[in-house]
Amino acid sequence: MSKTSLRINSDRLHGRLAELAAIGATPAGGVTRLALSDEDKTARHLLIAWLTELDLAPRYDDLGNIWAVRHGAADLDPVLMGSHLDSVVQGGRYDGALGVLAALEVLATLQEADIETTRPIGLVNWTNEEGVRFEPAMTSAGAVAGEFTADWVLDRRDRDGIRFGDELQRLGFAGSASDRPHPGRYLELHIEQGPVLEALGRPVGVVDGIVGITWSEVVIEGQPDHAGPSPMHLRRDALMAAAQLMLEIEQIAVRRDPTAVATVGRIAVEANVINTIPGRVTFSVDFRHQSPDILEAQIEQLHEAAANVGVHRSVDTDINRFWTSAPTAFDPGVLAAIKAATDLLDIPAHHQWSGAGHDAKYIADICPSGMIFVRSQGGLSHCEAEYSTPEDIEAGANVLLQAALALAESPDV
Amino acid sequence: MSKTSLRINSDRLHGRLAELAAIGATPAGGVTRLALSDEDKTARHLLIAWLTELDLAPRYDDLGNIWAVRHGAADLDPVLMGSHLDSVVQGGRYDGALGVLAALEVLATLQEADIETTRPIGLVNWTNEEGVRFEPAMTSAGAVAGEFTADWVLDRRDRDGIRFGDELQRLGFAGSASDRPHPGRYLELHIEQGPVLEALGRPVGVVDGIVGITWSEVVIEGQPDHAGPSPMHLRRDALMAAAQLMLEIEQIAVRRDPTAVATVGRIAVEANVINTIPGRVTFSVDFRHQSPDILEAQIEQLHEAAANVGVHRSVDTDINRFWTSAPTAFDPGVLAAIKAATDLLDIPAHHQWSGAGHDAKYIADICPSGMIFVRSQGGLSHCEAEYSTPEDIEAGANVLLQAALALAESPDV
Repeated sequence: MSKTSLRINSDRLHGRLAELAAIGATPAGGVTRLALSDEDKTARHLLIAWLTELDLAPRYDDLGNIWAVRHGAADLDPVLMGSHLDSVVQGGRYDGALGVLAALEVLATLQEADIETTRPIGLVNWTNEEGVRFEPAMTSAGAVAGEFTADWVLDRRDRDGIRFGDELQRLGFAGSASDRPHPGRYLELHIEQGPVLEALGRPVGVVDGIVGITWSEVVIEGQPDHAGPSPMHLRRDALMAAAQLMLEIEQIAVRRDPTAVATVGRIAVEANVINTIPGRVTFSVDFRHQSPDILEAQIEQLHEAAANVGVHRSVDTDINRFWTSAPTAFDPGVLAAIKAATDLLDIPAHHQWSGAGHDAKYIADICPSGMIFVRSQGGLSHCEAEYSTPEDIEAGANVLLQAALALAESPDV
Repeated sequence: MSKTSLRINSDRLHGRLAELAAIGATPAGGVTRLALSDEDKTARHLLIAWLTELDLAPRYDDLGNIWAVRHGAADLDPVLMGSHLDSVVQGGRYDGALGVLAALEVLATLQEADIETTRPIGLVNWTNEEGVRFEPAMTSAGAVAGEFTADWVLDRRDRDGIRFGDELQRLGFAGSASDRPHPGRYLELHIEQGPVLEALGRPVGVVDGIVGITWSEVVIEGQPDHAGPSPMHLRRDALMAAAQLMLEIEQIAVRRDPTAVATVGRIAVEANVINTIPGRVTFSVDFRHQSPDILEAQIEQLHEAAANVGVHRSVDTDINRFWTSAPTAFDPGVLAAIKAATDLLDIPAHHQWSGAGHDAKYIADICPSGMIFVRSQGGLSHCEAEYSTPEDIEAGANVLLQAALALAESPDV
């Protein structure tokens, strides 16, 4: 059988997805499988059992990242495929899990057909991608990529004060730094977690990169007062000022281009009492864009808009930009291999940027990397209703298979 | 000495204001004297001592309302002057207290000059005006006016479950229903608690009535989603919809007339997380106006605005109007007496409506009533910085004196 006619086994993949989804299953059909929880431990042992069944020798490193590699003809760093088995609280069955099990399915398909590749092909499960239990997100791919030190990651604590490193020991997955994976190329299949592919009627997306994100906190100080005796023209209402500024923030994204997004997700109002004019409002601003220059321009526009609202409404405004994650453009060669796979499979793919972070963001710092998105029904994720159809999942997994095969044969991507 | 040349003693009034402000005094110059607290008890005993010094026999009724009346030539219900001694937490020295002590000062002035009036003139301190410890506000003037039954008021409980009636017993102020005051006319002097008099440069206001208030809760249901992967045009952001609707609500008041006010004081956002598009926002709307028809029109405009935002942004909106207090217009004869007093005293007064509730709102149901406002520095109240100048207080108290004298001589107001 030629490599290009090779296809994954959709039934086997879905059987394993169902088996994995039973671990930490929630009544409404989702999963709660927090990083380094007992559920995560059970899921890890299941993955190891599956890898062992395939005659692949699983290993884990000092961050608990589990990985395994098929032999390749050349002594080169592998094409690693992967994602994460941990979930958010009451999350879905696909976020992360699909990327790991699609990678496993690719390895099973290659083993079954006894395919020889030049570069080895392997799988990785990154510990604590979600960052829900141990902040921040993507700690362990980050540590492998040099973004964080292992000591720092192992010292993270959850809300009960429990240490990441201690939980890793408890689970039996505290390995050695010498056992870290060394990807030569990295591919991550993930559900889109957004509505774009559905809106366009495309099953699969070629992810050109991960957008930059910058977070700010805006504080508006007005004058608290009784709702009754203050005429409208004498008020310095911090919430009305915030409302005006929020609509300006929305426009900063809308006016820019169709990929720019801006979100006000969190707001706190003082006194937050029905008959008191709000004196102080604090809210968050999340700007995302693939261009770092445009992110900077958006921050500048935020300052201008806040200054205008301040003058117009006699309120004081303060903006604290407290976190920025630079955009990551994926490797053109890896993206070309993914696109070629969609062409080969006759799958109408769409080029897009990821609005959310993924392990691939950090791994892209150490090797040529790329991502494949699978359409999400309703664009929903991080909820129990998260869903992708078996057909879309099969299409995505076949793209992963063919892209991995191509990358294994083109060492100079 | 003719009645019209009679003036209150500003030093005596300020001495008593200072003495009263020491009871429940806060470090920053305010007071915390919650209804039926130990501080309220001390203040009540001080008032009783002052009334007794004036040879007036204080009484209290089943709600703990304390009152005393000077003899009049005619056997008519008295002109009662009053307000309340209770305060909010970390409130000011003038809210309520000034109305009681200005009334006391009027009685002291009349006693000292041995003035005979046709109608008796008296003083009342209404229990629990603020409603901070025992909700709702103005319980005891309300009970006297027939708005609430005494049993219902006595059964109110504070946050610790302590019963109003039990506290009244504990304080020694649980009197008899047969001892309730029977005002023939009612006058209430109060600080403005708003910025209008200051903005106009007037020391005193003639309060034409108390505005109607209607409270609604608006719920906006959008679609919660990740801040990253959702393009702006596919979002159903409940907070951006709320922001747009809030600005419309502001305009509903601004476009109406200079007296209309609208306030969004309280807001709750779900999930209220920095990187999640808000899926659900709940906020309060407080409309106030002296015309009941305009209040209804404003509610109608709120529904229209919400429907427009709903269509424009593909969100569901729901409006629950849960409380309305009808406007109260004060008695024209009483208002004329107040205005005549300001003319007599050559005080530039301003006619205005009160945006906040006062005991006079309920008492107006049982006898001709009116209010006098004294300018508030910065419009501030319900805070320790609350302040009115001695000159403005003196002006207001003299208006109270002359209005009470006039009302005592014109039984058919």
